[in-house]
Amino acid sequence: MFEQLFKSIQDKVILTQEELELCKTFFIPKKLRKKQVLLQEGDICIYNTFIEKGLLRSFTMDEKGNEHIVQFAIEGWWITDLSSYLTNSTSIYTIEALEDSELLLLTTSAREALMDKIPMFERYQRLLLQNAYIANQARINSALTETAEEKYINLGNTYPGIVKRVPQHMIASYLGLTPETLSRIRKQISLRK
Amino acid sequence: MFEQLFKSIQDKVILTQEELELCKTFFIPKKLRKKQVLLQEGDICIYNTFIEKGLLRSFTMDEKGNEHIVQFAIEGWWITDLSSYLTNSTSIYTIEALEDSELLLLTTSAREALMDKIPMFERYQRLLLQNAYIANQARINSALTETAEEKYINLGNTYPGIVKRVPQHMIASYLGLTPETLSRIRKQISLRK
Repeated sequence: MFEQLFKSIQDKVILTQEELELCKTFFIPKKLRKKQVLLQEGDICIYNTFIEKGLLRSFTMDEKGNEHIVQFAIEGWWITDLSSYLTNSTSIYTIEALEDSELLLLTTSAREALMDKIPMFERYQRLLLQNAYIANQARINSALTETAEEKYINLGNTYPGIVKRVPQHMIASYLGLTPETLSRIRKQISLRK
Repeated sequence: MFEQLFKSIQDKVILTQEELELCKTFFIPKKLRKKQVLLQEGDICIYNTFIEKGLLRSFTMDEKGNEHIVQFAIEGWWITDLSSYLTNSTSIYTIEALEDSELLLLTTSAREALMDKIPMFERYQRLLLQNAYIANQARINSALTETAEEKYINLGNTYPGIVKRVPQHMIASYLGLTPETLSRIRKQISLRK
């Protein structure tokens, strides 16, 4: 159950076998079936969630009932509403499983305790935060400067695993396009090959 | 010269007097006069900059030559292009002093060394990253959901010190409004009082 988590940690920092075993005790394992919800909009996001297996998405809904997908996450990734999680405020996002998934949940107090006990876990968390910040910034810049086609191609290059596993209308929602526009773009790309 | 920095650190973590003295040796003090530039678009952002005194802004320029202000920062704050700083990539931002300013510069290698020597400095950096991430997320949500008037009022409530010290056309640029729209909004608000 902890294989992917240990890989994620040891890609960034060095922990002893003892420390890794200690880590285990702070996480709450949870399984979600496809379409089950981990976080409901309006609730406080009390878990930072590591994905051992499966695929989740976070999304927000506008007043007209249209979904806007904020993030996809697959095994080896973390997913949460970080603002809600860190500030204890209600979340504007829903997090839902798109495949049967195996998760490891970390509350804020468990996270604080882990960082106190294992300084290298704090470094791991800092490096995750840096990456999240950079990804967020890249997403903003992409929204401001790239054409629809560039956004689609870059998504496929950066996250090939996700594009293959997610229905096209969700890819469109993530990119801020209508399904029709995305379909037209994919046709144009395939004609050029 | 280190008053504001020490206050910023000790608001978040506890450092010994020895550790604070050690901190000093890792920063490069620098003074900028009004309108002088700290980072030029196209360069790599090699400093994370703490502001002891003064006011700076970061902005990007579109193809038509219009400036888009990304951030203001006053004494007690950090300013940098975090993505460029952390990934060694060229920056799309320019950082410029809007008042005569006194700065403390931290290179990435000095930051790494400080975090290795003083674990609580790493915690301080993690907490700064968390706040930066949350502020970034709030900025995105505000852009997506708030009216122009709400944006202006919230900016004044959140950062009264900045609104008073910055020319109105720059406030407009930060909020993504034309100066004329902002002027109309301010008139409407003052009429209602």
